[in-house]
Amino acid sequence: MTHRNWLTRHFRNNNIIYILLLLLTPKGLFAQTDPVFKPIAPDIIKLSSKVLDEDRKIYIYVPPADTLMPGKRYPVLYVLDGDNHFSMLAEYCRYLSRWDVNVTPEMIIVGIPNTNRTRDLTPTHSVVDYYGKPDTSSKSWLKPSGGGNNFLKFISSELIPYVDAHYKTEPFRIFAGHSFGGITTINCLLTQPDTFGAYIAISPSFWWDKEYLLNLADKKLKTNPVINKMIFYSDANEGGSDKSTFHVNLLKFDSLITQSKITGLDHKYVYYPEEIHMTEPVKGYYDALRFIYKQWDLPDMDPKLLNASVVKQHYQQLSARYGYAIIPTELNISNTAMYLMTQPGALDNAISLFEINAENYPASSTAFSQLGDAYLKKGNRSKAITYYKKALALNPGLQSIKAKLTSASEKR
Amino acid sequence: MTHRNWLTRHFRNNNIIYILLLLLTPKGLFAQTDPVFKPIAPDIIKLSSKVLDEDRKIYIYVPPADTLMPGKRYPVLYVLDGDNHFSMLAEYCRYLSRWDVNVTPEMIIVGIPNTNRTRDLTPTHSVVDYYGKPDTSSKSWLKPSGGGNNFLKFISSELIPYVDAHYKTEPFRIFAGHSFGGITTINCLLTQPDTFGAYIAISPSFWWDKEYLLNLADKKLKTNPVINKMIFYSDANEGGSDKSTFHVNLLKFDSLITQSKITGLDHKYVYYPEEIHMTEPVKGYYDALRFIYKQWDLPDMDPKLLNASVVKQHYQQLSARYGYAIIPTELNISNTAMYLMTQPGALDNAISLFEINAENYPASSTAFSQLGDAYLKKGNRSKAITYYKKALALNPGLQSIKAKLTSASEKR
Repeated sequence: MTHRNWLTRHFRNNNIIYILLLLLTPKGLFAQTDPVFKPIAPDIIKLSSKVLDEDRKIYIYVPPADTLMPGKRYPVLYVLDGDNHFSMLAEYCRYLSRWDVNVTPEMIIVGIPNTNRTRDLTPTHSVVDYYGKPDTSSKSWLKPSGGGNNFLKFISSELIPYVDAHYKTEPFRIFAGHSFGGITTINCLLTQPDTFGAYIAISPSFWWDKEYLLNLADKKLKTNPVINKMIFYSDANEGGSDKSTFHVNLLKFDSLITQSKITGLDHKYVYYPEEIHMTEPVKGYYDALRFIYKQWDLPDMDPKLLNASVVKQHYQQLSARYGYAIIPTELNISNTAMYLMTQPGALDNAISLFEINAENYPASSTAFSQLGDAYLKKGNRSKAITYYKKALALNPGLQSIKAKLTSASEKR
Repeated sequence: MTHRNWLTRHFRNNNIIYILLLLLTPKGLFAQTDPVFKPIAPDIIKLSSKVLDEDRKIYIYVPPADTLMPGKRYPVLYVLDGDNHFSMLAEYCRYLSRWDVNVTPEMIIVGIPNTNRTRDLTPTHSVVDYYGKPDTSSKSWLKPSGGGNNFLKFISSELIPYVDAHYKTEPFRIFAGHSFGGITTINCLLTQPDTFGAYIAISPSFWWDKEYLLNLADKKLKTNPVINKMIFYSDANEGGSDKSTFHVNLLKFDSLITQSKITGLDHKYVYYPEEIHMTEPVKGYYDALRFIYKQWDLPDMDPKLLNASVVKQHYQQLSARYGYAIIPTELNISNTAMYLMTQPGALDNAISLFEINAENYPASSTAFSQLGDAYLKKGNRSKAITYYKKALALNPGLQSIKAKLTSASEKR
């Protein structure tokens, strides 16, 4: 039984909840939960763009405030076709970053709804449609095409600076798009790769303008570039057979990626034969998030080996991968440490983990109270009393800690 | 190119939007879209349960009103652990029932948050935990277990009647649960199968009480029962290897299902080796919805064969499968018919589909206007004029129809 599965299983069975209620709240055991539904309620802002010469509506979802870390900052996911997939991605990120799921960090999600989709999400001007037919009529839906590079300029020179100025952001950004949105994210990776740290392209419309973007990729990737980025791309059953234009083009792109001598590009390709063009984002965006955050949680390992230096190394590796200092949440470390306390020969490891929390969250009475519990279990009453006193100083009214302190002192 | 993919691809490329704007709105082409974000905002009601002797909070998501069909009724999905998975399922159903996705119907989603999870979601009283260890202490989290059958009584005798009395429901209901919620849905299928039409069990905790539920399933299924229901069940990487208790138990359950002589049970089992216990619901609930509604959309077929009788037969089959009269949405039929109008030899089929809309939506000026368009294309001006007049009578102010009527009359 690995610690990850232990935690989730026991959470499901209320055991961890029991422990947490006991330790964290004065209400004690069997308190009735009183859940309140919280909708995804983004800020909806209007951004006046000089680059696009129009006002743009933008949706911005921000995770709930962290009382223990009021200055907490978040990575940011930007999603195109915001009217289609913003709320799904916000829901995914909210769920996957829950303490009892913990496979991604909490994120700010920025949704960009369309005004003129054909204009903004095509890299070149072309009036040739999917079937190869030109439509030169004055009413052609293809007529406004070709504003893609200008749209990327809007994103990098106006939208990202706005979000960074008004929200608590970390420098790691993800760019997600589907169909025309998919060629937009890939165009960004090829022409201004440093705008984002990770790119998602769900069924990119490579057919656009005689495979313009495949040709561009070929040209750019031939030069053996260094691209320290991540990219996830996919396609689905979009032509009734494996011979569809989408699938053939995605296979071409995948072989460009895998056969070129690119340094540093972490990539994943998934083909979804059971999905259609419009259902593919449900699975694709989820798998993309799991790929980008593939080692987010602590590794499953022997409790005797899971000590503070392993934990610190893990978060150093995450910090290197995502380019900013990543500090584990208090709850994740304390859950892991509480599990270690139940395992033979792992008490010192538990203590070393509680110490990480005390270091990262010096204002948390819980962190010191738990450290006291662990030292008490180890038989070191004087240290336990020291930490209980510290916990009480941080939260003087807490009866549960007073009781622990009294009890530990009496036993002396 | 199948019609499904044609529609979705062209939607993505604004072509269908172009057609729709032209036909449906007076604004004409290239109208700027003005999307407004709509959060999942459920009713939150308090239900005083006599069966449970407590007040229960219930979340109820209702699809937006259909102006063309104000009395429209919906199937209902009930999800356990409402605090965990209600908003995800509501998001899925909202997205998957969009006109441009259309792989499920719109649904009412009822989320049931927990008060005492161990009490409500276990079929028997037991104080033996996952590892087989009994915990007889007065504080044991297992102590309240065994209220599962009473909880099912609450659902069937209080909750469902409440929802049916206060919301526009169809008689088709889905019951969805994860972990302890999974054994609850399977217990319901085995003991009161007619409560729901479809059951979802994501990693059901079959380990409960010495595999009580597997034994019950064995007993019930031995009798060669008739169960005209659907069931989806799954498990994930929940023990570090394929030898996990969850996986072994799910394989046992699956062989009970597949090897028993059950009549009428439509079942699907999926194993997710790359998911953990708490991420599995993201994929499992989605795949379950796709399974339950596996043939919801019209079949992909040769335009020359896709006529009204095929469409009517399709909806008769759906009505038989789900147990209530299912009428296609106007938009789905008109999109399909507009596609047929572009295909050689399929104009009469298009007309026959527009006639379905005129029959189902007699108050829709669009339905008659489109029928007029199709007859005009066929060269039957007198019928076109008749239908344009009917459309105009239903919506006297609509300039676009006036213009069509004038134009058709002049050409005569």
